[in-house]
Amino acid sequence: MYQPPRGTRDFLPDEMYKRNWILEQIREVYEAYGFEPLGTPAFESWELLKMKSGEDVINQIYYFKDKSDRELGLRFDLTTSLARVMATHRELQMPFKRYAMGPVWRYENPSEKRFREFWQADADTVGVGDPIADAEVLSAAVDCLKKMGFEGFLIKLNDRRILEEFILNAGVPKERVLEAIRAVDKLLKIGKERVIEELRRLSIDSVEAEKLLDALSLTGTPEHVLAEAESRLRGSPEGLKGCKALRDMVIYATSFGYAEYIVVELSLARGLDYYTGPVFEVSAKGFEDYGSIAGGGRYDEIINIFGGNTTPATGISFGIERLVTLLEMKGGFENVALGVDVLVAPISETVKSEAIKVAQELRSAGNSTIIDLLGRRLSKQLEYAGKKHVRKVVIIGERELAEGCLTVRDMKTGEQIKVERAKLLECIRS
Amino acid sequence: MYQPPRGTRDFLPDEMYKRNWILEQIREVYEAYGFEPLGTPAFESWELLKMKSGEDVINQIYYFKDKSDRELGLRFDLTTSLARVMATHRELQMPFKRYAMGPVWRYENPSEKRFREFWQADADTVGVGDPIADAEVLSAAVDCLKKMGFEGFLIKLNDRRILEEFILNAGVPKERVLEAIRAVDKLLKIGKERVIEELRRLSIDSVEAEKLLDALSLTGTPEHVLAEAESRLRGSPEGLKGCKALRDMVIYATSFGYAEYIVVELSLARGLDYYTGPVFEVSAKGFEDYGSIAGGGRYDEIINIFGGNTTPATGISFGIERLVTLLEMKGGFENVALGVDVLVAPISETVKSEAIKVAQELRSAGNSTIIDLLGRRLSKQLEYAGKKHVRKVVIIGERELAEGCLTVRDMKTGEQIKVERAKLLECIRS
Repeated sequence: MYQPPRGTRDFLPDEMYKRNWILEQIREVYEAYGFEPLGTPAFESWELLKMKSGEDVINQIYYFKDKSDRELGLRFDLTTSLARVMATHRELQMPFKRYAMGPVWRYENPSEKRFREFWQADADTVGVGDPIADAEVLSAAVDCLKKMGFEGFLIKLNDRRILEEFILNAGVPKERVLEAIRAVDKLLKIGKERVIEELRRLSIDSVEAEKLLDALSLTGTPEHVLAEAESRLRGSPEGLKGCKALRDMVIYATSFGYAEYIVVELSLARGLDYYTGPVFEVSAKGFEDYGSIAGGGRYDEIINIFGGNTTPATGISFGIERLVTLLEMKGGFENVALGVDVLVAPISETVKSEAIKVAQELRSAGNSTIIDLLGRRLSKQLEYAGKKHVRKVVIIGERELAEGCLTVRDMKTGEQIKVERAKLLECIRS
Repeated sequence: MYQPPRGTRDFLPDEMYKRNWILEQIREVYEAYGFEPLGTPAFESWELLKMKSGEDVINQIYYFKDKSDRELGLRFDLTTSLARVMATHRELQMPFKRYAMGPVWRYENPSEKRFREFWQADADTVGVGDPIADAEVLSAAVDCLKKMGFEGFLIKLNDRRILEEFILNAGVPKERVLEAIRAVDKLLKIGKERVIEELRRLSIDSVEAEKLLDALSLTGTPEHVLAEAESRLRGSPEGLKGCKALRDMVIYATSFGYAEYIVVELSLARGLDYYTGPVFEVSAKGFEDYGSIAGGGRYDEIINIFGGNTTPATGISFGIERLVTLLEMKGGFENVALGVDVLVAPISETVKSEAIKVAQELRSAGNSTIIDLLGRRLSKQLEYAGKKHVRKVVIIGERELAEGCLTVRDMKTGEQIKVERAKLLECIRS
C-alpha cells in the first residue's frame, strides 16, 4: 500500500479544516496590516538557495535537476524567494510589504513534531531600516494570535549586533563569531556548562566565557536589561546601535499595544546566519514550554547578496503545524464551524429530482449541503449524517412534498419539525 | 540576476490578489456543495506517479531522489494523491467528497500560455457509481463560474465507453483502442483528414475510418445524438451503458439547473488514459475559442490499481491560469476590491505614535491599513498612496490632533474633510 513519502503527511478533512481556518485568520490580519500577497515557485535555482541557506540548512535541501540539467532545489523557506524578487523587480514601490503562505521542504530526521514538508506564513517589510518595521511585523503576529484566541504572550527580543559585540569583547576572533553565536543560541537548550565547553573550543578562556554568559543572562525589565547592556558595551558603537534599536522597538510596541509582553533576552540568536539586527520570537502564555510559535528578524544584507541594491528588510514567520497543535490543546477549534451543515435526504427515487433542487437552493444561500448520492434508505442516510457531523437533515417525502412540506431534523437534539417548502431557508438559518 | 526557474513565474501582488480571489470563489462553492478539503504532499513516490500518469505525462514529471535514494516526483495532478489516500484510508466514510487546490508541475515546453508550475482546483466524489455524482461535480463547476461572473456556458459531454465501442466496431484491435482514442481526440484540433491518416496507421481502412468519424461527428440536441448513437451501438452493451449514463446526466442536469448548456460530443476523449465513463469539459460563452476552463470525468479503476478496493470516482478540475486570463479579458476584476484601503500619514515625528494607534484601530475594524514607515513628508506619502492605489489617506497633523481632529483625503476625488477623531471609523466605512 502506498504511503505519503517519508516525512510528509496527508491531511484529512478534519485536520484540513483547522489548517485552512488558521491560514484564513493569518491572511485577514496580514491583509489588514497592508501586507500584500506574493506568489513564488516551489523550487528555486540551487545556486540561489545555497547562497542564502547557511551550513545548517544546505544539507537539508531537496536537490534535483530538470531535464535540461539545471540544478534546482525545493524552497526551504519563503524569504529566499522574496529576496530574489526584490533583487530583480526594481520597479516595486518601497516600502514593499508582502505576505506569503505555503509549504516549504527540509530533509530533516522526521519525528512526531518534525516533518519534511511543513507550512509557513510570513509577513515581511522591505525598504525600511527603522525599527518601526520590526515592531510592525511583530504587532501583526501578535494580532494573528489574538484573532485565533490566544490571550497572553511572551515576546523575546534581541539584536544580533549586541550579541556579536559581547562575543567579540569576550575575545572570539571575528571569523568564529557565527560559531560562537550558534553555541550561545543553545544556552536554554543544553545549559550553561555545555555552552562554556563549546566556547572554550573556540579559544575563549573559562573566565571570559563565564563573564559572557553572565552578561547574556541579564534579566529584568527591557529598560533595565538594555541599560546594563549599554554600560557594558560602552566602547562598541555597533552594540550600542543594537541597544538603541531595541529601545525604539519597545517605544513603538507601546503604541502598537503589546509592549507589556516584551522581554529582552540577550542570548537569543535565532540560528540563521543572515540576521543583521533585531531578532524576535513569540510564544503564547501557558504554552511557553512548546517553544515559539512565530519568529523572525532583520536581514539587511540578503537582497544585496542576490545582486540587488542594498535594501533593509525584516519579517516574521509562523509555523502552521505548531499552531494546530497548540490550538488543539487549548480547545481553540471548539467554536469554529467545520464541516457540512445540511444533508438533503430523499426517501425515494421519485423525489430525488426535488431533493436536488432543494440542495441547490440551500447551497445558493451559503449552506454547505450534501445530498444522498447512493439511493440509500433513510436510516442509512441518517447514520451517514451522524458520522459526518452534519448539523441538520432535510427529509423529503412523497406525501409531505405533495402538501408543500419538508421535514427538518436537528441532528444534535434529534428533534424533527415539519416545515413549509417556502420557509426552508429561514428554518435552516435559525 | 536570478530569475524564477524556467517555466515558473513570480506573481506580484496585483496578479496575486486576482488569483486569491478566484481560489476563494471556488473554495466557497466547493464547500457549499459539501466537498471537504484534503491536503496531500507536493511530491509522491515515483512508482505511484508512473502507475497513473500514462505515456503523455510520464516524461513530464520532475523526478528526483531524496537523500536515502527514494525515487520521488513532483505531483502532476491532484487526482493521483486522492486515489492513493482512498486506497489506504479505508476508514473514510463513503461517499467521500473532497476538494483540493494547489500547484502541480509538468515539464512541458514553456510558452506564453503554458507553464511548468500551474495551479489546479479540483472537486471529486469517491464511492458513487451513479451519474448523479458526475452531474454534481459539473454543477459545482458551473456554479463556480457563475459566482465569478460568467453568464453562459458550453458543456461538452461524452462517455468513454461510447467512444471505445465505436472504435472497436470500426475494426481497431483492442490493444490499440487507446491510440485510436488519442487520434480521435484531436479531431477538432487537426481536422478530419489528418485523423483519418492516423487511424489508417492503426490498420483501419478508409471507409471504416470515414464511417467512424461521421458517427463521432453527430450533432443536434443531446436527445437526438444519444438516440442516433444508441441505434448504431445496438450490439454493444458497454456502449449502451455509456449512452444511458449520459441520458441520466442530462436528467440530473435539469434538476441542478444547467441542462440547457449541454452538448453531447461523441469525439470528446480528454486525453488521459484512465477515464472509464462520462467525460466533460466546460467553456464560457463568448470564450469558446480559448478552450475549456474546467474538465473532468469518471475514473472507476485507479483506486483499485493503487491497491484499494474497486471504488467508483469522478471529478472536475479548474486550471487557475486560464481563469485569470479570461476574467481579465472580460473585465471581471473591475468590481473586486483589491489592495490597500487606507494610508495613515503622520505629518511629523511627534504624531507618529498617535498615527500607529489610529492605524491599529482601522485594522481592528477590518480596514487594510498601512502607515508611513519612512518618515517621509506628506507630499511623498500621498505620491506613494497614489502609486499603491490606496483609497483613503488619514492625515495626522499636530494642531488638528490637539483639537481632537484628523483629515481624511479621498484619493479618487482629491477631496479632503476634517473629521473628529471619534468618528474616524464611521467616516472610513462610508
